[in-house]
Amino acid sequence: MKLVRFGDAGAEKPGMIDHNGDLRDLSGQVDDIAGHVLSDTTLDMLRTLDPMALPKVDREVRFGPCVGQIGKFMCIGLNYSDHAAETGAAIPEHPILFMKATSAIVGPNDDVVMPRGSTHTDWEVELGVVIGKACKYVSEEEALDYVAGYCVCNDVSERHFQTKLTGQWTKGKSCDTFGPTGPWLVTRDEVGDPQNLAMHLDVNGNRRQTGNTNTMIFTVAQCISHLSQMFTLHPGDVISTGTPPGVGMGMKPDPVYLKEGDVMDLTIEKLGSQRQVVRADG
Amino acid sequence: MKLVRFGDAGAEKPGMIDHNGDLRDLSGQVDDIAGHVLSDTTLDMLRTLDPMALPKVDREVRFGPCVGQIGKFMCIGLNYSDHAAETGAAIPEHPILFMKATSAIVGPNDDVVMPRGSTHTDWEVELGVVIGKACKYVSEEEALDYVAGYCVCNDVSERHFQTKLTGQWTKGKSCDTFGPTGPWLVTRDEVGDPQNLAMHLDVNGNRRQTGNTNTMIFTVAQCISHLSQMFTLHPGDVISTGTPPGVGMGMKPDPVYLKEGDVMDLTIEKLGSQRQVVRADG
Repeated sequence: MKLVRFGDAGAEKPGMIDHNGDLRDLSGQVDDIAGHVLSDTTLDMLRTLDPMALPKVDREVRFGPCVGQIGKFMCIGLNYSDHAAETGAAIPEHPILFMKATSAIVGPNDDVVMPRGSTHTDWEVELGVVIGKACKYVSEEEALDYVAGYCVCNDVSERHFQTKLTGQWTKGKSCDTFGPTGPWLVTRDEVGDPQNLAMHLDVNGNRRQTGNTNTMIFTVAQCISHLSQMFTLHPGDVISTGTPPGVGMGMKPDPVYLKEGDVMDLTIEKLGSQRQVVRADG
Repeated sequence: MKLVRFGDAGAEKPGMIDHNGDLRDLSGQVDDIAGHVLSDTTLDMLRTLDPMALPKVDREVRFGPCVGQIGKFMCIGLNYSDHAAETGAAIPEHPILFMKATSAIVGPNDDVVMPRGSTHTDWEVELGVVIGKACKYVSEEEALDYVAGYCVCNDVSERHFQTKLTGQWTKGKSCDTFGPTGPWLVTRDEVGDPQNLAMHLDVNGNRRQTGNTNTMIFTVAQCISHLSQMFTLHPGDVISTGTPPGVGMGMKPDPVYLKEGDVMDLTIEKLGSQRQVVRADG
């Protein structure tokens, strides 16, 4: 299933995409795509529905983030061997965790707004993992049983805020609009192996990032297991699992950063596409 | 006013402490101590109530975190000049920000549970600042206008997770139960100057931390202003503003960490006290 949230920001309704690519309204079945709705039980209930019998919605509507009420937005840093090589960083011994403020989360096609004074805003296409069931101290072998599904994330990053404003990356990752998430939450049965998904990101039509989740240093299962040794992962938590090569910071001969009017297009195999226009805050 | 949340975890009701120290039920007036209830308008409405006319509640009830639905739990690192000296760290150029997962937040007297494998769990009494009104790009001069009130926080920290598991402090700060918050949200009119509050923390009755917010490197107003340059602070967001000297990591001749059965007592002038018993997860 492809689950979505549509409508005005802060007032999104739940929906699903049918076999023809049409948007169907799930408001009559569930309140939101969030929390306990992400459990296997409720997802199984939704699978029994006939999408064609649900109200059809105009696809021109805005898509919101594909998960509501995200409790923790966890990001894994330097998790692709080819991206680590690009930045000159050593291969980390454990998954590097930082948090993105949940107030940064927006829909997949909403504008990305560079904060005042920002001159180093960069892109990062990433596989997002949506937790469906609470877990703690889970093994790698069992970890994927706790996943509701997957989505595209753009881990937008202000490199100066991230690295020059005194320690800890979260400052550069948490600006408003720096967390486009969606368009769809694709349930794990429909994705299969999360370690073989091609992905790419274009800026103004020029290919910048090309990668595949098969070069992740720590697999989705390893990340879930590691994090769950420290704290409980709850339904609706999201883990953005790191980015492949091709970020602006790594470009040669000089880094390239986003500017007003730039357009980012992101795609991950099986998970759909995002498009954001970049704006500068006045 | 001293506002509280009381009752079972996850089902807390709003309340206030009256002039006799008795607990009064605010369920008839507001849904929760959270979000828009923290606005000046609603706080002013609550001030017009006669506490003695509200239902009295047994003080033996559990206190929950004094703010509900916390969106961002931001922590400032190394923010006391005397604590920075104790750890041997340089005085930071800007406030060091890291995030504590909101899933770590518990009531002021709930048990603190060390996760499996934890051997370096430490204490940190801190002044918590509760945002009452959304703000972005706010000046230092205006910053305190956006504060609803203040509370005690214990920024419990697993030092090995924080520093030895590959970068970024959030791992050691986000374990379940590592964010005791409360007992009261004391509104800013009742606190006055936040830069002159004495604070201390005892472990098993032995004084470990003694400090005063007058040795903060970055004042509350400076922290709010700095963070708001990067992202919007929303009602119900909390900033825990750093800890004074006396953490276990800094003890001489050797660091001392918490063990099962230890009791922490924390007090900040005007803001009340917390007490937690330490447990080890089985």
